[in-house]
Formats: sequence, structure tokens, C-alpha cells
Amino acid sequence: MFKVNENFVKLPASYLFVDIAKKVSEFSKQHPETEIIRLGIGDVTRPLPKAVVKAMQAAAEEMGKAETFRGYGPEAGYEFLRTAIAENDFIKRGVQVDIDEIFVSDGAKSDTGSIGDIFDVDNVVAVCDPVYPVYVDTNVMAGRAGEYTEGKGWSKIVYMPCLKENGFLPELPKERVDVIYLCFPNNPSGVGISRDALKKWVDYALANQSVILYDAAYEAFITEGDMPHSIYEIEGAKKCAIEFRSFSKTAGFTGTRCAYTVIPKALVFNGVSLNKLWDRRQSTKMNGVSYVVQRGAEAVFSEEGQREVRENIIYYLNNAKIIVSGLEKAGFEVYGGVNSPYVWLKTPDGLTSWEFFDLLLEKTGVVGTPGSGFGVGGEGYFRLTSFNTKENTEKAVERIIRFFKA
Amino acid sequence: MFKVNENFVKLPASYLFVDIAKKVSEFSKQHPETEIIRLGIGDVTRPLPKAVVKAMQAAAEEMGKAETFRGYGPEAGYEFLRTAIAENDFIKRGVQVDIDEIFVSDGAKSDTGSIGDIFDVDNVVAVCDPVYPVYVDTNVMAGRAGEYTEGKGWSKIVYMPCLKENGFLPELPKERVDVIYLCFPNNPSGVGISRDALKKWVDYALANQSVILYDAAYEAFITEGDMPHSIYEIEGAKKCAIEFRSFSKTAGFTGTRCAYTVIPKALVFNGVSLNKLWDRRQSTKMNGVSYVVQRGAEAVFSEEGQREVRENIIYYLNNAKIIVSGLEKAGFEVYGGVNSPYVWLKTPDGLTSWEFFDLLLEKTGVVGTPGSGFGVGGEGYFRLTSFNTKENTEKAVERIIRFFKA
Repeated sequence: MFKVNENFVKLPASYLFVDIAKKVSEFSKQHPETEIIRLGIGDVTRPLPKAVVKAMQAAAEEMGKAETFRGYGPEAGYEFLRTAIAENDFIKRGVQVDIDEIFVSDGAKSDTGSIGDIFDVDNVVAVCDPVYPVYVDTNVMAGRAGEYTEGKGWSKIVYMPCLKENGFLPELPKERVDVIYLCFPNNPSGVGISRDALKKWVDYALANQSVILYDAAYEAFITEGDMPHSIYEIEGAKKCAIEFRSFSKTAGFTGTRCAYTVIPKALVFNGVSLNKLWDRRQSTKMNGVSYVVQRGAEAVFSEEGQREVRENIIYYLNNAKIIVSGLEKAGFEVYGGVNSPYVWLKTPDGLTSWEFFDLLLEKTGVVGTPGSGFGVGGEGYFRLTSFNTKENTEKAVERIIRFFKA
Repeated sequence: MFKVNENFVKLPASYLFVDIAKKVSEFSKQHPETEIIRLGIGDVTRPLPKAVVKAMQAAAEEMGKAETFRGYGPEAGYEFLRTAIAENDFIKRGVQVDIDEIFVSDGAKSDTGSIGDIFDVDNVVAVCDPVYPVYVDTNVMAGRAGEYTEGKGWSKIVYMPCLKENGFLPELPKERVDVIYLCFPNNPSGVGISRDALKKWVDYALANQSVILYDAAYEAFITEGDMPHSIYEIEGAKKCAIEFRSFSKTAGFTGTRCAYTVIPKALVFNGVSLNKLWDRRQSTKMNGVSYVVQRGAEAVFSEEGQREVRENIIYYLNNAKIIVSGLEKAGFEVYGGVNSPYVWLKTPDGLTSWEFFDLLLEKTGVVGTPGSGFGVGGEGYFRLTSFNTKENTEKAVERIIRFFKA
């Protein structure tokens, strides 16, 4: 008889955003007069850069003509895009990345979610706490997580608390771990990591022969000079780290879908190249990203594209600044928002994350995300995002100040 | 220390198309005067329908305006596309499929490659021989295949020979199998399956509580009335089958990337719904298909789109007809090509697939695919495809007749 993968059955249903939607909808029914402002979800709202739209339309045109039609492309991405990525995202920063170390995909979620395919099931996995749930859930599915205990988490996962006491930066684990997920600037805390702090992780990984999975999806939001945009700015990282990048938050591609993963050829364990394994995985399990989308992604690196992308990032960062200064004025402890679109706040008066969610919704009509939704370590914290319009962001902040300052 | 998934290391390197490319390039160097005609690869060449191009351009335009911009879409696909699929591909044929049974993706290769994520590693897998290599390779990666012996295959995989003796249709396995991959019209043999023949498989799966993975990527090429376009035309199939569909060969989407998978809600094992497991898998490991591409796929179902798609299919089927009748004239035993873009021929004079490849290339400049590249059961067979232009197809066939009739 056919048997399902029982690891999937172990996975508790994820109700975070469903629960939020339900609470908001109930509140709206009871208070139809209140205008809800959503600072909860991590999705962009600014339109695609014009350069990107133009490139996609031209590419669609090409696909409609026999002479310029393109069928199957290279699984790892067209050379035109991989070259643009290597030059703009790495070589311009003094980092040498070869184009056959770059794998273009439809999203960082796909890549961080599927990278475990090439890992043995017995590797010990370490994650920050709070954390982007995909890292944990995909390891549960693969059978790497052990058993779940409510309020504690998975028995085989090593959780690294990121709290205000340690500046939201994980400490090196006491036990030996094989796979380490790091995301900087961080989701959900919005905190970035300095070169020196990241170097400790690279040194740890090299000493312990661990692999760092470095999620740099928010690197475009970095404003401070001592923060690396790529882990390969750190010496030795090519021997221990895989880096995930995305056009989603950088260029508004959340609905357009393009990302990439860097696996250096120097990343070799027991004589096996992870670059080659991933290449085999991708060639076998996918057929590359839409040509039209790849042309759009290439246009992100054009002069016009870069100008428009920078404008959008500055727009969001300005919203983040409005949130941070407003919350501080209202007496909150606030983190993040400087190198990140996310603002992380300590809930006041010892409220739980969900209690604060209810209070904020009821008193101000503002929707955010309870920190506890990202793990035990997020309890007592709350995430606000800068992806709404400037007008709505200002309005939300004014309401918060009005209520909480009182 | 970090450990790789050793199952990947077991996988013999796949050199089929690399070897073909090498041989062709060497031949070209030695015979620069010979014009090579490629009837080897399964990639379309006709441009995208104009309706699709227009829809994609309009969608890109929407993405460039704040009022119509779209961020993250539903992981399983937009309702507009899922509704169009349900209505056109199923309800019009008298098959009821609900839109929450349809999961839109970037390709049938992604779906057939990843569906195993939700299956236990201990399921016994059966495949046709010859077979599309992705079915086998992805089970190797998951640890379901056992050990490999050259010329025999994988120890735990049940191979079902499809030879001219059985009309290229697999026989019900004697041993009990849990997962059965079926692809009709078949790649590589080009042979379709009748309703009655498919019913035997559905009955087998129901009796043995097996799951059929039904790859219907080539259903648009069916010309004969008694062949089901969907396995759900067979009674009981919703309790035992997952169906994979693609816009690739139907509408020329090989470089545009859109497909979908149907998992009926009635597909439940030990109380666990495969529809829910796959939904959880997809929500966790991907973020849906590009909005622009989904609008393109929707346009395939428009009146204009359908007309253009039919024209292309007829164009390819006409090429297939040219190949079949030409090869018969030249004295070959020929199969497929009637309900499929693929023509499958028995190599003459007991030649191996590769010997015939060399002979065909040397004497006619025509490139095809050795049947042995699809598995042991393909030895002594050869695949030609109808995806080149009519002119080239005719020229190739003339050359073949000229040489082999002599």
C-alpha cells in the first residue's frame, strides 16, 4: 500500500497569517468605521521599474516571432542574466563569483526550501529563533527535525535565541552543528550583521566543516558601511557558505518571481562538490526560469533599472524611518528598520505578541505580525513592515503615537 | 561534519544529450559541407500564440503601475487561471475537477520531479522501460531506487518493458507496487493508450492501494477518439491518480514555463489527503508562478489562443505524418506519431541505438535520439521528433528515403 511521507503529517498547521486575517475580518465587521492599515505582510507595493516592464514586453514580443522564439533555456539561467548578476552584485563589490557558480531560480523560497535535497538527512541543523518559518518547515518535511513540543520546538533542531540581550545576533552553538541558516539583514528582526560578527560564523563553519546557508534577500536595504552585502566578502566563506539572493524585495519581483543562489566551486565535502550536486538537482527537477522574466531581471541592472530600484528602496527605508521615530516617540523599544524594511519592537507592559496584536488592532486599526509567529524567541516582540504607502505609514504611526503616548 | 545526500552520488552522470552534441560537433568539423537537421530534441520551435504574447505584455504593463501592481500571488495559482483550466481542460470533457484540486506550477518537470517529497521513501516505484529519465532520477535522489547495475538499472525500481511485442503498453506488474508512473501519449514511444487499457491500471491501483502518477503532457496531440485526454475520464481514477499537465508542448511554453498538477480531494491514504500534503509542500517551498506568465497561460484558453494553438499542433502532427510515411516508404518499422509529436522506430538490421545514430548522422546528416538513452527497453529503437520546420522535416525524410531505400 502507498505510504505518505509521515514527516509532513508531523508538521503543525501554520495558521499565523490565516489567524491574522480572521481577526482582522472580525474586527472590520464590528467596526466598519475604522480604516484598517496593514503593516503586517512582507510584500512590496511599489510597481515594477519601467525598465523591467519594457524588457519583459520586448521579450514577450521576441517569443511571438519564429526567428527570435526561445524554447527550453539553460536550467541554471541564461548567460546574459548570470553575467549581469556576477558583474553587478559581486565583481563591483570586489568579490569574484563565476557565472557557473550562479543558479537562477523562481525564488529564494524555492531555493532555501529545496537546497536540503542535496543534504544528508542526519545533518544537525541550527536556526535563529525567531526565524523565517520556511527554514524549519522544510527540514521537518525532510525528516531532519525530530519531534515537536508545543512552546519548545523540534527536538533535533538547534535553536539560537536572538533577543535584545544579544543584540538579536545568534551566539555560536555549544554543540556541533552541520548546517547553519543565517539571514542578514534579518527577517523578522530587521537587524543587520557586521563584517566582524559574520567572520566568527565563517571561522566556526570552517573549523567544524559546517555549511552556512546565508539568506541575503534583504541586502539591498543595507545603509551602513560595515555590513557585508554578500557573505563572500568574508575570507574563507567560499569554502563553507551558500548564498541566497532575490529580486523580490530588491526590485519588486514578489509577483514576477526571480532569484538566484550562489554555490561556490570551492564548496567541497569529502571530495563531493555541492555546486555539481545542485546543478544535477536543478537540471533534473526544473527547466529554468521563464525567458521573459529573466530579461526583466537583467533590466534591473541597467542604468535606468538601478535608478528606479534605488528610488523604491529609499521610499521603503523612509517609511521604516517614519515607523522607528514614531514608535520611539510613543515610548517603544524599537529595533531594525535601518538596514531593513522590517521594524521589530518589544511589546510594552509585558504583553504577549498576540495580546499586543489585539490591542493595536482595536485601538489604532493597525495590523502587524506577532513575533511569536516566528518562533518561541519572538514572543513579546512584534513586526511592522515598511511596504505600505508613505501616507498610510504616516497615518498608522500618528494613530500609534496618539494612543500609546497617552 | 556536514554530509551530502549520498543518493545523489550514486546517480550515474547523464550524458545522453551531451554525447549527442559532441558527436554532432565532431561530424560537423569533418563534414562542413553537410547541413545537419535536428530531429532529436523534444523542444518546440513555433512561436507563442499572439494572444499569449498580448496577454503577457498587458500583464507586464499592469505590473508597472501602482494601481494594478501584484505582489505575491496564491502559491497554487491565480483563480482566473485555475478556473480557465477546470472549465476548458476538464468540464468541457465531462470531467469535474474543482479549482482547489489544481496546482499551477512552472513545469511538469518540477512537479513530476518534486511530487515524491510527499511520498514515503519505502514505496515501491514502477516505471515503463523506456522512460522519461526524470521519473527514475528523482527517485534515486530520494533514496527509493536501491543500487545501480549497468545494463540492468536500479535494484528497487520495478521496470515494465514497453516493446513492440506488447504494443509499447506496460503489463500489470506481478509484484505489488505502490507508485506507478504512466505517460500517455508516451515519451519516448509516441504511443497512446485506450480507455480500456487505462482502466486496467486504475482498477489495479484501486485494488492495491497504489498511486498512479499520470503524465499527460502530450494530450493535446491526441487525434484518436478512444484515447482519454485525462485519466479522470476513467471511473475511480480520482481515488488513485495524480495528473500532470503542461503548457509546454500544447502552447509552446517550453521557454515560458507554466504547467499544472491535479490532485483530487478524494485521493486519501490512511486518512491523509495528498491534496493537502501537496498544498503544504507548495506553500512552503515556492511562491507561485509569475503573474505575467499566468496571464499568458490564461490566454491559451481564449478563442484566438485556442485557434493558434490548434494550428501549431496540426503543424507538428503533419510533420510527424511526413516522418512516419517517409520512414515506412524507406522500409522502417515505425510507431507513434499519430497521437504524439514523437516517432519511434525499430533500428534496421539489428543495429544498436547508437550504431543507428552514427549511421543516420553520417549518411543523412539527420540527428535523432538513441532509444537506449531512455533505458534498457529502448535499445534497438530510435526517436525522431516533429518539432523542426516542415521544410527541414521533409528534407530529412527525403535524405533518409534516398539512403535507406537503396
